[in-house]
Amino acid sequence: MSPSYSSAAGEVPAPCRALVLFGATGDLARRMLWPSLYALHCDGLLPEPFQLVGAATKPIPDAEFIARVHDAIRASANGSLFNEQAFEAFAKRIRYVAVDAAAEDGFAPLRATLAPGAGGVIYYLSTGPEHFGPISAQLGRSGLADAMSRIVVEKPIGTDTGTALQVNETMGSAFAERQVFRIDHYLGKEAVQNLLALRFGNAIFEPLWNSTAIDYVQITVAETVGIEGRWGYYDGVGALRDMVQSHVLQLLCLVAMEPPAGFTPSAVRNEKVKVLWSLRPMTRESVLTHTVRGQYAAGFSGGKPVPGYLEEAGARPASDNESFVALRAEVDNWRWAGVPFYLRTGKRMQERSSEIVIQFKPAPFNIFAGIGQNLAANMLLIKLQPNETITLSLMHKKPGLNEVRLGEVPLNLSLDDAFAASRKRIAYERMLLDVLRDNPALFVRRDEVEASWQWIDGIVHGWQAAGQKVKPYPAGSWGPTAAVALTERHGHSWHE
Amino acid sequence: MSPSYSSAAGEVPAPCRALVLFGATGDLARRMLWPSLYALHCDGLLPEPFQLVGAATKPIPDAEFIARVHDAIRASANGSLFNEQAFEAFAKRIRYVAVDAAAEDGFAPLRATLAPGAGGVIYYLSTGPEHFGPISAQLGRSGLADAMSRIVVEKPIGTDTGTALQVNETMGSAFAERQVFRIDHYLGKEAVQNLLALRFGNAIFEPLWNSTAIDYVQITVAETVGIEGRWGYYDGVGALRDMVQSHVLQLLCLVAMEPPAGFTPSAVRNEKVKVLWSLRPMTRESVLTHTVRGQYAAGFSGGKPVPGYLEEAGARPASDNESFVALRAEVDNWRWAGVPFYLRTGKRMQERSSEIVIQFKPAPFNIFAGIGQNLAANMLLIKLQPNETITLSLMHKKPGLNEVRLGEVPLNLSLDDAFAASRKRIAYERMLLDVLRDNPALFVRRDEVEASWQWIDGIVHGWQAAGQKVKPYPAGSWGPTAAVALTERHGHSWHE
Repeated sequence: MSPSYSSAAGEVPAPCRALVLFGATGDLARRMLWPSLYALHCDGLLPEPFQLVGAATKPIPDAEFIARVHDAIRASANGSLFNEQAFEAFAKRIRYVAVDAAAEDGFAPLRATLAPGAGGVIYYLSTGPEHFGPISAQLGRSGLADAMSRIVVEKPIGTDTGTALQVNETMGSAFAERQVFRIDHYLGKEAVQNLLALRFGNAIFEPLWNSTAIDYVQITVAETVGIEGRWGYYDGVGALRDMVQSHVLQLLCLVAMEPPAGFTPSAVRNEKVKVLWSLRPMTRESVLTHTVRGQYAAGFSGGKPVPGYLEEAGARPASDNESFVALRAEVDNWRWAGVPFYLRTGKRMQERSSEIVIQFKPAPFNIFAGIGQNLAANMLLIKLQPNETITLSLMHKKPGLNEVRLGEVPLNLSLDDAFAASRKRIAYERMLLDVLRDNPALFVRRDEVEASWQWIDGIVHGWQAAGQKVKPYPAGSWGPTAAVALTERHGHSWHE
Repeated sequence: MSPSYSSAAGEVPAPCRALVLFGATGDLARRMLWPSLYALHCDGLLPEPFQLVGAATKPIPDAEFIARVHDAIRASANGSLFNEQAFEAFAKRIRYVAVDAAAEDGFAPLRATLAPGAGGVIYYLSTGPEHFGPISAQLGRSGLADAMSRIVVEKPIGTDTGTALQVNETMGSAFAERQVFRIDHYLGKEAVQNLLALRFGNAIFEPLWNSTAIDYVQITVAETVGIEGRWGYYDGVGALRDMVQSHVLQLLCLVAMEPPAGFTPSAVRNEKVKVLWSLRPMTRESVLTHTVRGQYAAGFSGGKPVPGYLEEAGARPASDNESFVALRAEVDNWRWAGVPFYLRTGKRMQERSSEIVIQFKPAPFNIFAGIGQNLAANMLLIKLQPNETITLSLMHKKPGLNEVRLGEVPLNLSLDDAFAASRKRIAYERMLLDVLRDNPALFVRRDEVEASWQWIDGIVHGWQAAGQKVKPYPAGSWGPTAAVALTERHGHSWHE
């Protein structure tokens, strides 16, 4: 790890004067980013003045672009906030500019559009990953990547260690690491942030947060959707690289990390990367016992018949690409030795559900067995989707006059009704706000990306060496039965 | 400890055919016992047939006695349950009989009144403690104390080790220890019973339940009432012997006990008595630093002026009797060494409040200090009066888009709205039901009474040897300022 990663540089907020959104007409921009910027505007959380520049390849008149943004916000999850008067003020911030990253001085129009002034410019790359390098380079060449500026990208960053290094190098040639904000929107979720507050704000969790008290950990990111016309992108990538390398490993880091030296971006990320370094590498032998690859076959989703992965539009009939993966990961350090981390993610699952399960060990002895009472082991459930909640399951005495009867009760630690509501939009709002505040604590640092790719590469190589093929599972199920066996043969069960 | 205490004898329920209530016209009988018996009747929890015999010294015709019971139930906390039709059926169980424990065969009328049949008779002594011996002896002589019968008494059992031994011996000459049920109605409270379920039903509490994680424990039993015309009884006794020896030490035992071998009466009580044996004896020296005696002076209660202890009706002007006591107890064993148990109880306190506070140690380091966030140490609060609740206070992240802000939140572990309601009457109903079921787990065993008196005697002797006098405190306060100093000089604070 380069010492500059650990410096306090970048931890002093610098003011911003504009945000340039590359891919301004794309899907993510329409559904999430413009609505989030609008909400921040309405809440008075954008600086003044603060310009919003939409950038894409096609020329579009400003008025037409603003009309598109208008419609996108109205149609979004933030639609209920919509108000023509507020939008009118918001629209005054917006300009559109057509750019060509490949052309000689192709960002000249952008340079001309950006109003001069003090403060940095945020470049948000809501584009395909193949554009990260060219756009970064062009920003550098055009003199737009000054020391005050920031660049924001979202996964995928590469498809393996080599390509990730390449992308990071290209961004790094124009921007210092402290200027690079790699978003993982799962880290913007309230329940994920509260996990850190609970772990490190309360002395009572530390004695429980280790292999003595915890039996196993599960992280599930399950989608009900299928490939959704993205066959071209997805088939070269698969569930492991698309989801595990990013979201799933980031969640694993937050669960497993040691207490950081402080709640500073450097300290938090130092601890996260340490977890990634501690992941036991997979081998040709261990992939056979520690991983399951799946591919959905025809089945049902939401009560309707849906095609299998190989029958989707644009499918390559013989594809061995996985749409589901289940892993038994091991964190080889003092705290976690012997505690399996079961990870799974997939498309066309039975339910849309993202969650972290901390399964505590059973009580060492049941003193209530003699009065016919069974004990369930305690469990901490951090739910990210469809709703964000944190729940601790406890045994208690059922109230009443009857002889002592114990029952299991879920104890809601979310502690706020508002919190339980869907907060998907909030995740992007918080991430954007953190970029504005120059706070990269919950963004992914270069060494984290590279360390997680190294572990993922080991699995991919193991699969290739072992010739491990995908197993079919019916759409609308929880994956191949081998995924069940992965936990059950250790006496553990997936939480459903 | 006699081996018979630990045998399984008495753990097989025996059927009952009747309950004889001595002191049937007294205050406790009127306010609590008849209403509780009525509620058990209405809930179908009394056996059939099951006779209820009121016994006292004065002759009263059955009809008149039944009318008194009728009025008592209607006027009680269970009054809302009252229903003439249900009472009519209940009244069919009731007989009244005048008895004289001192007379030759003075229980002959009782013997004649009790309907013959299979099953044992429960003798409930709702009388002054001076009658426990004579009634027990008379029951023995009259042939009424057969092996199926049970005797129920409530504190005070003696006023020191010697007198307690005497009372226990007299009861023991007629009844085996397994037939003796010594009620402490605090043990019948839902929150107290749930404390055992939480501690031993959940593996996650054990790593926290010791001197490594817990800073100190507090037990408060505070009354707002004064002496209430009981000067004659109370002045010879005082707060230490009236409340600490019984309720307060029983609560301490439940907090401090080791996991029992099973949830059986013998196993639970073996662990409780072990705690009492581990209490560090007080000496002439330690009472000066570890105890505070107080006596209320004139002041205010519920906004009204009230007289001081020495100005109450019937007061002895020079009395040094304490109406308040605060103690720093130490449990000398592996689990609790170094953890102070602060105990206090008093009359004319600011609030009526009985509670157990488990104060956890602060987090070893505050990683959030750099972002201006303070951490409050975790606390588990078991409230017995005025309402029964169990609450864990935690730090969490306040939801929202703002920069990370931590807040303290109370987490209600009571887990049932119904539970939060006042359950005073339930305590007696449960205790009566446990007697019917022959389950003495939550009753106080002879060795517990004697061990707690031994510790209390040490304090009394220390006070006498050191000449430690009562300190006045204004009615409506939390006791003398010395009680505050008792905790504060160790950096601890009473929970208020």
